[in-house]
Amino acid sequence: MPTGTDVTEQGDRDARPTVIDLNADLGEGFGRWTLTDDEALLDVVTSANVACGFHAGDPSIMRKVCSLAAERGVRIGAQVSYRDLAGFGRRAMDMAPDELADEVTYQIGALEVFARAAGSRVTYVKPHGALYNRVVADEEQAAAVIEGIRRADPSLPVLGLPGSALHRAAEAVGSPTVKEAFADRAYTAAGTLVSRREPGAVRHDEEEVVARSVRMAGERLVVAITGELVPVDARSLCVHGDTPSAARLARRIRAALSEAGVTVEPFA
Amino acid sequence: MPTGTDVTEQGDRDARPTVIDLNADLGEGFGRWTLTDDEALLDVVTSANVACGFHAGDPSIMRKVCSLAAERGVRIGAQVSYRDLAGFGRRAMDMAPDELADEVTYQIGALEVFARAAGSRVTYVKPHGALYNRVVADEEQAAAVIEGIRRADPSLPVLGLPGSALHRAAEAVGSPTVKEAFADRAYTAAGTLVSRREPGAVRHDEEEVVARSVRMAGERLVVAITGELVPVDARSLCVHGDTPSAARLARRIRAALSEAGVTVEPFA
Amino acid sequence: MPTGTDVTEQGDRDARPTVIDLNADLGEGFGRWTLTDDEALLDVVTSANVACGFHAGDPSIMRKVCSLAAERGVRIGAQVSYRDLAGFGRRAMDMAPDELADEVTYQIGALEVFARAAGSRVTYVKPHGALYNRVVADEEQAAAVIEGIRRADPSLPVLGLPGSALHRAAEAVGSPTVKEAFADRAYTAAGTLVSRREPGAVRHDEEEVVARSVRMAGERLVVAITGELVPVDARSLCVHGDTPSAARLARRIRAALSEAGVTVEPFA
Amino acid sequence: MPTGTDVTEQGDRDARPTVIDLNADLGEGFGRWTLTDDEALLDVVTSANVACGFHAGDPSIMRKVCSLAAERGVRIGAQVSYRDLAGFGRRAMDMAPDELADEVTYQIGALEVFARAAGSRVTYVKPHGALYNRVVADEEQAAAVIEGIRRADPSLPVLGLPGSALHRAAEAVGSPTVKEAFADRAYTAAGTLVSRREPGAVRHDEEEVVARSVRMAGERLVVAITGELVPVDARSLCVHGDTPSAARLARRIRAALSEAGVTVEPFA
Repeated sequence: MPTGTDVTEQGDRDARPTVIDLNADLGEGFGRWTLTDDEALLDVVTSANVACGFHAGDPSIMRKVCSLAAERGVRIGAQVSYRDLAGFGRRAMDMAPDELADEVTYQIGALEVFARAAGSRVTYVKPHGALYNRVVADEEQAAAVIEGIRRADPSLPVLGLPGSALHRAAEAVGSPTVKEAFADRAYTAAGTLVSRREPGAVRHDEEEVVARSVRMAGERLVVAITGELVPVDARSLCVHGDTPSAARLARRIRAALSEAGVTVEPFA
Repeated sequence: MPTGTDVTEQGDRDARPTVIDLNADLGEGFGRWTLTDDEALLDVVTSANVACGFHAGDPSIMRKVCSLAAERGVRIGAQVSYRDLAGFGRRAMDMAPDELADEVTYQIGALEVFARAAGSRVTYVKPHGALYNRVVADEEQAAAVIEGIRRADPSLPVLGLPGSALHRAAEAVGSPTVKEAFADRAYTAAGTLVSRREPGAVRHDEEEVVARSVRMAGERLVVAITGELVPVDARSLCVHGDTPSAARLARRIRAALSEAGVTVEPFA
Repeated sequence: MPTGTDVTEQGDRDARPTVIDLNADLGEGFGRWTLTDDEALLDVVTSANVACGFHAGDPSIMRKVCSLAAERGVRIGAQVSYRDLAGFGRRAMDMAPDELADEVTYQIGALEVFARAAGSRVTYVKPHGALYNRVVADEEQAAAVIEGIRRADPSLPVLGLPGSALHRAAEAVGSPTVKEAFADRAYTAAGTLVSRREPGAVRHDEEEVVARSVRMAGERLVVAITGELVPVDARSLCVHGDTPSAARLARRIRAALSEAGVTVEPFA
Repeated sequence: MPTGTDVTEQGDRDARPTVIDLNADLGEGFGRWTLTDDEALLDVVTSANVACGFHAGDPSIMRKVCSLAAERGVRIGAQVSYRDLAGFGRRAMDMAPDELADEVTYQIGALEVFARAAGSRVTYVKPHGALYNRVVADEEQAAAVIEGIRRADPSLPVLGLPGSALHRAAEAVGSPTVKEAFADRAYTAAGTLVSRREPGAVRHDEEEVVARSVRMAGERLVVAITGELVPVDARSLCVHGDTPSAARLARRIRAALSEAGVTVEPFA
């Protein structure tokens, strides 16, 4: 096998069975504060992006989420972030690559011990918030994130946008990648995400989000914000967890996927 | 072997060869700030108590200290603390046992990933500052610390004061312990530490500290602050790392130990 | 007037008109997280205990709460806390008195600038959580809190429990105090609060809480947990803000007080 | 008087007496860690840029530095920063302007209470580290900093680089500015600072730094890194405080200035 390929690659579009993973951000509380309905979401998703304490998540929350995920057979991923509790990791930071790599490693290690204590493992990494957005294009920070992951475990795949600097950085050093799409985000005709600053970037209509999810997973297509039908190449679908109706929407998406003959299953 | 015994137990006093471990607190900087001369101390000690980010230590410092320790064959221990950067972990906190256990687990996991990346492992745990003092007598927090360690790895020994609540809590659940003594702290006639609030609690004279170290390790005795000769039961000797002359003093202690025929060697 | 007396002292019980202040903890979010329904509560209470960033509250929340309070003529108080975001200020800390005093001063200053920007002022101080409980009896920390307040402004009254170490420390140096009672907390026959660790310490029945509030404010009496009728000496009544139904309960209490002829009015 | 002019404007170059302020960053420790020799520097400088807790500085340090500064008649300025203890405020952050403004206001308020307690006042504001560099060109963040200052006190001048976005933002709303130059930084032929990433950007030779200081203050000129003689328009000269020899260098600069007939005096 060549190094750095998508670990979920399954051959050409038509022949393969439609299989999709559902991932959501979980454990995004801190101390007295909660945000996500972790228990309800863990009954729906197949992959849990668990906050590791830098933008959200404290040790007790991490233990609980890992324990709940392990009980349900949901895979645990490290949702790594800039160190920014006050900004919930939503503020891009200019950091020395080495420092960023070390912060990524630290977060993975902190989560891994709870995953193991729960009888599971950290099986992938996904950057959060501003870091996620930054490494779509920032080659230096993308390489630092990959370096930080590799120091923890070179076999850990990184979940991210197809074609992102993050995925390119992973491929350049032979690290595995998993491609994801967003159920409630608008896409451009080029197949990239519409910036959150643009009107219509986030789709709020539940019916629409459910229908898009099914099409993304089943036909691997999405209607761009400008009307074109564009291909979507994703092995995982991200559903948002931080709204009051998040769990309900996730359940609807999962049900609709099953009904459409799509198998909801974690990536390898 | 009965569970929970001192992993370094070597039989009766007279028969055994005099062997001692030297431990010091390392990596106690944070971001722009440094405190300990890690490189110099790592050339002397056999066990490095590495700060894990809660009272000091950031991911980059942790990586560097682990790397330097691994190169020198110095054993890496997790120096776990209350979450208190502003107070350097020197302020006792009333915490729910579960939260404390989770914080201990988190810190061990965060250090373990760097130890492994350096080709080493976390091989013991030592509480820091106010937590160290608190678990000398506080049964609840002592049990929580042991629980936190066991969740990370039940085979990890905890370094602490003989007879402390911490060691009793470890023994109660079959966790290994390692006994330590302090080169520069005064002892009572009962063999306990004189409180830092008392005059003379910390010995500053280098000659005296060196001589005490040799006697503690070689004869397993110390002169109490009230003049009595009292037994000291320790497999490890703590030397302080946070003074400008720390490395020099540590070197003198190690040289004097060798000269006195004491083998300086990490615990098993 | 003698120094250090209750600034709200109004003579003997029977003759005075029944006047009460309603205070609540507000602005207890942080970054992405919220806790209290500040707008709804600010329509009901007469005094806002605003979190200052150490247990909750960030600069933007502080600005907004001060602005909303000023618009409504609600008085702004500094809700000072131990530095403990992870524990929401609910974990007692052993601190050097000077450090505690300085932390109190810092928080008052940080809130004062937002109060002034909103055209108002910080007009009182109330310790939060574990600090509140600690200074009921801890003379050293109580004196430190008062010292911290006095460095900011010696004329600022401190809101607290009658007879607490905090109030005694204030009186000892001539600082003003304001006595408060708790609408939803059980009282002992001695007129002190039942510890939260005891069953029945917090009253959850809305009807009961409303009735107790009216009696506390109107008759200055409360039925102890053991059945006795005991006097309550309070110029302010604390209503909790951190439950979903907090604003509704506060509205009911205020309405019932008015109906009972009690004037709801801030302390001088 | 037109709004927004340099508060220290003194007419044309030749006619005015040569007067300069010396400013340095102070109080840049945190908890157990120290960085600057505050006492020694306060004997030399006329303006103290005091860290306010976001990149460095804790309440106790702030109180001590304010007290020492007030005793010596040294003016107190708020050295405001991004919230980034781990990065010492040296990592630029993308922040919503409102949040940045609020953070600036908070820091000024927190320092003001200690300045007042010491019998002094905060008389100016200077951004720190990455924020300082960012607002040289970033119009949005520059405007946010000025807004944050104005909410605290519209009469507070902001110390910064002549021609910076920060100064333009101040001038646009009629806020006062004070221009500064750097004794140990290289200048381009255009009169701007050479980026720290370029070789030679920071001048380490003490003789050279002293000589440059005298020329900057006395003749208002500096030799650019490319050899040209360029004008320097500054009412304050920044000397660095975070090196072991900082106080000695500052003393030498001050002595050389006096010898050259330059009056060392705070700005109005």
